[in-house]
Amino acid sequence: MDENEKKLHEKFDLLKGYLDKEDNLRFRKTYLDMHFYDQSTFYLTLDAEERQKLYGILQPNEMGDMFDTLQDDLPEIPDFLLEMDVKYAADMLNYMYDDNAADVLEHLDKSHVDEFLEQMPKADANNLRGLLHYDTETAGGIMTTDYVEFNESIKAGEAIQDLRKFAETAETIYYLYLLDDHKDLVGVMSLRDLILQKPEVNLRDVMNTDIISVNVDEEQEEVAKVFRDYEFLAVPVVDHANHMVGIITVDDVIEVIDDEAQQDYSGLAAVNVDESEHDGPLKAASKRLPWLITLLLLSMFTATLVNHYEGLLAQASILAVFISTITGTAGNAGTQSLAVAVRRLAVDEIDKSDFFKLIGKELLTGFVTGFVTGVSVFLIVGIWKSNFVLGFVIGLAMCAAIMVANLAGSLIPMMMASFGFDPAVASGPFISTLSDLTSVLIYFSIAGVFISHFVGS
Amino acid sequence: MDENEKKLHEKFDLLKGYLDKEDNLRFRKTYLDMHFYDQSTFYLTLDAEERQKLYGILQPNEMGDMFDTLQDDLPEIPDFLLEMDVKYAADMLNYMYDDNAADVLEHLDKSHVDEFLEQMPKADANNLRGLLHYDTETAGGIMTTDYVEFNESIKAGEAIQDLRKFAETAETIYYLYLLDDHKDLVGVMSLRDLILQKPEVNLRDVMNTDIISVNVDEEQEEVAKVFRDYEFLAVPVVDHANHMVGIITVDDVIEVIDDEAQQDYSGLAAVNVDESEHDGPLKAASKRLPWLITLLLLSMFTATLVNHYEGLLAQASILAVFISTITGTAGNAGTQSLAVAVRRLAVDEIDKSDFFKLIGKELLTGFVTGFVTGVSVFLIVGIWKSNFVLGFVIGLAMCAAIMVANLAGSLIPMMMASFGFDPAVASGPFISTLSDLTSVLIYFSIAGVFISHFVGS
Repeated sequence: MDENEKKLHEKFDLLKGYLDKEDNLRFRKTYLDMHFYDQSTFYLTLDAEERQKLYGILQPNEMGDMFDTLQDDLPEIPDFLLEMDVKYAADMLNYMYDDNAADVLEHLDKSHVDEFLEQMPKADANNLRGLLHYDTETAGGIMTTDYVEFNESIKAGEAIQDLRKFAETAETIYYLYLLDDHKDLVGVMSLRDLILQKPEVNLRDVMNTDIISVNVDEEQEEVAKVFRDYEFLAVPVVDHANHMVGIITVDDVIEVIDDEAQQDYSGLAAVNVDESEHDGPLKAASKRLPWLITLLLLSMFTATLVNHYEGLLAQASILAVFISTITGTAGNAGTQSLAVAVRRLAVDEIDKSDFFKLIGKELLTGFVTGFVTGVSVFLIVGIWKSNFVLGFVIGLAMCAAIMVANLAGSLIPMMMASFGFDPAVASGPFISTLSDLTSVLIYFSIAGVFISHFVGS
Repeated sequence: MDENEKKLHEKFDLLKGYLDKEDNLRFRKTYLDMHFYDQSTFYLTLDAEERQKLYGILQPNEMGDMFDTLQDDLPEIPDFLLEMDVKYAADMLNYMYDDNAADVLEHLDKSHVDEFLEQMPKADANNLRGLLHYDTETAGGIMTTDYVEFNESIKAGEAIQDLRKFAETAETIYYLYLLDDHKDLVGVMSLRDLILQKPEVNLRDVMNTDIISVNVDEEQEEVAKVFRDYEFLAVPVVDHANHMVGIITVDDVIEVIDDEAQQDYSGLAAVNVDESEHDGPLKAASKRLPWLITLLLLSMFTATLVNHYEGLLAQASILAVFISTITGTAGNAGTQSLAVAVRRLAVDEIDKSDFFKLIGKELLTGFVTGFVTGVSVFLIVGIWKSNFVLGFVIGLAMCAAIMVANLAGSLIPMMMASFGFDPAVASGPFISTLSDLTSVLIYFSIAGVFISHFVGS
């Protein structure tokens, strides 16, 4: 990609030159020939003064094409809109695909949103207002209402003719949605199938009636699953009365999949990994500290527990040597089983009967891993310290601690999911800090029983 | 989706009834009306005998449409192919999109692959053999050669006519690729733009010449980035001489994004989260144990280190109380900074000047988090034990341990990336086990300096 990038930067330098010299004609030619995404990359390199020049050169619709590709959560977007003439900004928003326009407006103050909407034709403003009502992480929040619909009685030839009208505005023309006289969605047809039809064929007779649709308040992860399974480029969105209200296109689903992956990853590490590059160390620290301090407080319980066994430690300070080995290894095992459980929950719905089967399996897995790890540590410690009773204590404690951590690692996310929480919040650090507590309890309980056998031997 | 699932299962029961009664006509009608993905879900519910009946009822091309949607890494796929008549299987593979056929063949023994390829027309077999040569995780490994290409001199009207020929075989007809007389890729046009053109227009004059393509040995993550940025439905793949060799479609990219997310997530937890549901506890344990045992051995160094300080511990067994608090919290901080670094590496290329800026920032972030956490623990321990010297020792050790863990968490993945390794392999458990070692060293060193001040006070 480096060759591409170099060519792009040369083009950017050229464009800045035209902008300086106010050579608007050459600027427009070069700029409009670029991909919308490259246009937006260029836009983001400009300062306020240069941007003002740009607004003078480009029409609102040309600006809108570029804004369609901007990430709606860029922190600068509100400033961009507010530095534009209100009418210009409203026109631009109106030319954008309505799902993108709604995403942009979601990041503005309500008063500014109203200001822009007032400048738009009433029908368009109401349409956007409707989209703004949906929860952002549902089908309604990511759908667009710019799609191609026909009455099912249309003929193939007419449909191809009429499609041209949609080609300018619809977000995709590669699927046609066919409605009956009650506006119910009754069929779908791809453009690919359409061009294979004879012009005089009624679409009603050849359309696909086995419609896969999503409900308007379906969660976005569920929508992503439909795309993964069926490999669609777009999916229709219907309300509870099966009236079609919009479509979701595959580019928005890629964003959803990325966001979900990011959230899961952040959850596992107990940090929001979406820290902006522009965040300074203070900002970054302020995002990480709440988790760290919470976990620190949790770990103080472990400290109190060890404190409770201070008598035992005074008798056998050798016990202190293996605290971190046991807590660390059990924490690692717990993190593994947590990750497996969270991932499985993300892929499948798990019902009651599966629940007990999975817990049973995890218990057995914990037993096997615990046993193998326990035997290893028994041998290592036994040989190292020439004390197989001590080795046995450490090994047994390790085995039990791993079993408990494994069980907690799968039980906690599954219980969270069944209570309706996002299981990905149960992070690796949380599980390992929690398992420190149980590991220490197990360790000192076992050590207490055997202490007379390994001390002084 | 539950309503949809119920309807689907009713349909499956119906289909099984037809299969039992050998009512092939009704079976074909119901089966072929379903989406390919639903067909494949049905196929996976059949036993060997029922599948044999299916092979008798369906044509190889109908079978191929369904096989196109099967996950190529399903462990049963080789068995499915080998239970078919060789000629039937070869025909089916030939009807499949060639990227999918190649993916399926990749999971078979070489001898079986040759057997199937021998049954195919020579050109098709050679084509597949070509695809099998590419590394599976590169552009070549996920591309298809079933795309629409024209000479740039074609007129819009002719192109639409000729497109019908491609509609049956090409994986997407929504982009047309235009070649010059040397077969170099010189232009791209979407079907959407094509239908807006007058029939007599030369595509050469209206095609998009600002072509974004990927090189055949580009890594698949880089390909995914292009799709994310430009929101394409397909991207052309070219060889080093800019000759077009294939296209990559968005459905394959969704798979790539999922796979990459899974790998990152697995890396962070030090476990392959893609454990099959069908894996028994032994299999699952055998996948998790290598990491656990490796980390156990690493943690034995920590144990040896604590052992080295046994004299100190014997003097002040209170020190043992805070071992797990310090190692645990530093490990959590290290995991956070690791996750941030790995994620940033996945999104951006990081060059030398960024490297030092990022490390500097991470050092400062570590200082702030370490300082705040250190002060907290100083107060907690000081008040709890009425011993602010001890509190100071624990707080100072905590602060230093967090700073080191933070630095390691970002330095290790960045160094791995710059040596060409996948940074996601540096897992959370690895970082926290490693940081146990440094934390213990820091803790006892500081405690050693101050021991006379807090013991016996």
